[in-house]
Amino acid sequence: MIPFNKPHLTGKELTYIQDAVASGKISGNGKYTKLCQQKFEKDFGFLKTLLTSSCTDALEMAAILIGLEPGDEVIMPSYTFVSTANAFILRGAKIVFADSRNDHPGMDESLLENLITPKTKAIVPVHYAGVACDMERIMSIAEKYNLFVVEDAAQAIDSYFINSSGTKKALGTFGHLAAFSFHETKNIISGEGGMLAINHPGFVERAEIIWEKGTNRSAFFRGEVDKYGWVDIGSSFLPSDIIAAFLWAQLEHLPQIQQKRFALWNQYFNGLKGWAENNGVRLPHVPGFATNNAHMFYLVFSRVEDRTKVIDALKENGIMSVFHYISLHSSKYYEPHHDGRPLTNSDYYSDTLLRFPMFFDLSESEVDHIIQVTKSINLND
Amino acid sequence: MIPFNKPHLTGKELTYIQDAVASGKISGNGKYTKLCQQKFEKDFGFLKTLLTSSCTDALEMAAILIGLEPGDEVIMPSYTFVSTANAFILRGAKIVFADSRNDHPGMDESLLENLITPKTKAIVPVHYAGVACDMERIMSIAEKYNLFVVEDAAQAIDSYFINSSGTKKALGTFGHLAAFSFHETKNIISGEGGMLAINHPGFVERAEIIWEKGTNRSAFFRGEVDKYGWVDIGSSFLPSDIIAAFLWAQLEHLPQIQQKRFALWNQYFNGLKGWAENNGVRLPHVPGFATNNAHMFYLVFSRVEDRTKVIDALKENGIMSVFHYISLHSSKYYEPHHDGRPLTNSDYYSDTLLRFPMFFDLSESEVDHIIQVTKSINLND
Repeated sequence: MIPFNKPHLTGKELTYIQDAVASGKISGNGKYTKLCQQKFEKDFGFLKTLLTSSCTDALEMAAILIGLEPGDEVIMPSYTFVSTANAFILRGAKIVFADSRNDHPGMDESLLENLITPKTKAIVPVHYAGVACDMERIMSIAEKYNLFVVEDAAQAIDSYFINSSGTKKALGTFGHLAAFSFHETKNIISGEGGMLAINHPGFVERAEIIWEKGTNRSAFFRGEVDKYGWVDIGSSFLPSDIIAAFLWAQLEHLPQIQQKRFALWNQYFNGLKGWAENNGVRLPHVPGFATNNAHMFYLVFSRVEDRTKVIDALKENGIMSVFHYISLHSSKYYEPHHDGRPLTNSDYYSDTLLRFPMFFDLSESEVDHIIQVTKSINLND
Repeated sequence: MIPFNKPHLTGKELTYIQDAVASGKISGNGKYTKLCQQKFEKDFGFLKTLLTSSCTDALEMAAILIGLEPGDEVIMPSYTFVSTANAFILRGAKIVFADSRNDHPGMDESLLENLITPKTKAIVPVHYAGVACDMERIMSIAEKYNLFVVEDAAQAIDSYFINSSGTKKALGTFGHLAAFSFHETKNIISGEGGMLAINHPGFVERAEIIWEKGTNRSAFFRGEVDKYGWVDIGSSFLPSDIIAAFLWAQLEHLPQIQQKRFALWNQYFNGLKGWAENNGVRLPHVPGFATNNAHMFYLVFSRVEDRTKVIDALKENGIMSVFHYISLHSSKYYEPHHDGRPLTNSDYYSDTLLRFPMFFDLSESEVDHIIQVTKSINLND
């Protein structure tokens, strides 16, 4: 059996957890939380980061920080995880769903301006498969209409946007705020886990307060206020230092993890290229302004029937593949609230995109086996 | 140095985490999550439990489940942690704060009926120090006025209410919903962590959906629906199975942990009883309808100056003691929203209650040292 995903220990996870316990503090904002945050800030250029219990939590913090009022509109792709939308709905927002690009499941940036109304408060680009949205274009639209940008960078750690002058900059450093995930399927993991990146200086102080349950506890421990208390709304967004210790071990090994994932990704790509082209199957597309972080290998078929055939054939050979994202605009929950615009590309990816096994401990020979099984499938029956 | 708190490894925490990783699933709702939930339900008699990332998260789930509308009122003590209030404020509720009892920091049940208005939706009793509120009285008031009861049982694991006919029943099984904490200072811990207990059958299905980000994913994996999707609001309330694995090791050792904590608590109580009585210092009070779970040992002084003197004297001797809960009604955040009623008992405990070190690895000789230092303090200077 080749599972779709399998969590990987880099080696020091348990040692660091034991150390956290020995240090006397395993609640949130401990030693390993600080280590992770500092390294993320330094390595990727975020102004400030705060670890969270999940990417969902980071998105909820963002929704609180941008000060949504009931009825405010937030634009995001329909082809995304429910949390992208839920976080803003919990604050009373109306979601305006955008269709995906023709060449990529990411949001079609050319549609954005038509979706903006006087009630629009924010744009939430999702960097699908760790591949950048056109952040130059999105930030320029946001500036023109005075909107907030919250990057859903759940899958996008160690991935970059290349601007028109050729400069490479980490995803999650463009928007006023950005949310990352360390869910077990991501490149670096802590089971569940996430991070809010803050790039706008005006949000730093309040973000820390909201993170600490609406108290100015962090400022108190830095000696900036003489006692701490309840000063704002907030929640317990900060993860246990057990989670941060686990993540720290992963983060230390990010280069090795990425090297292995790239090798697997390239093996898939090169192994399936010819077959895909001959069978009308689309390979993952990386626009010129984006980089690949080898988060995900997927194929896009012409028809749902083809995808079903591939899923079944792989399963018969002990290989688990998965699809995801039923277009949010046509979900049971949101369909009654959607404005009725057809979002055909989003529905298309819902029907036809298939994700292949991708994890650190996947071996070259397993990928070879998956490639051979896939290539043996006759899509023209 | 004797710290106020120190997390304790029971022995198998790291083994279980390693096993969780090896099992191939460390995201939420995995093997150890299910083990913990089943044991909690069986040992304490909850209808259904769901682990959460924090007690705050469990309270937020409760606030969603009871269907709060903006302007609805929720009654709770002012002498409590900010999360008790924040969870309901995030859903638009107005908080009506009740004063504490004369004999105990818990909410004064005799004041409740006067605080109920046509807008009241719920009562949130907080079992301070794991000592029960009068649940018979509270449930009867709730029934009379058709209100929800959400027990804030953050400190109350393995503690009980004894009803007028002498029957003992676990805290957290009375209210429609109840929230527990496994924060590192609690009797059993996972750094950060919590649990929602659901006692009203009508909430079980929706609780699971809200827990799983508003999707019917759990029903799908049980084969009850043929595909899963977005059906409701929700968040990522479920903790990593790394956290659940840690908690499972703790839960297995609950009897030993409780035995040790009781020994320490009794040592404090017996050692300080005479001195306290001679100096007008109040010892922890356990009403006849409640049990003690040895969560906390505290003293209540007559004046803030006495408490300050004791804190300082303990600190000089390397002993960390802490106080907590600035009355929420007089916090910077909520004071402008409070209706102006003086809550004198709440303010009194804010000024005079002091918590002593209490953790599994605290030794008998350390407690003896703390007792001797305390008894040597002259409060009449």
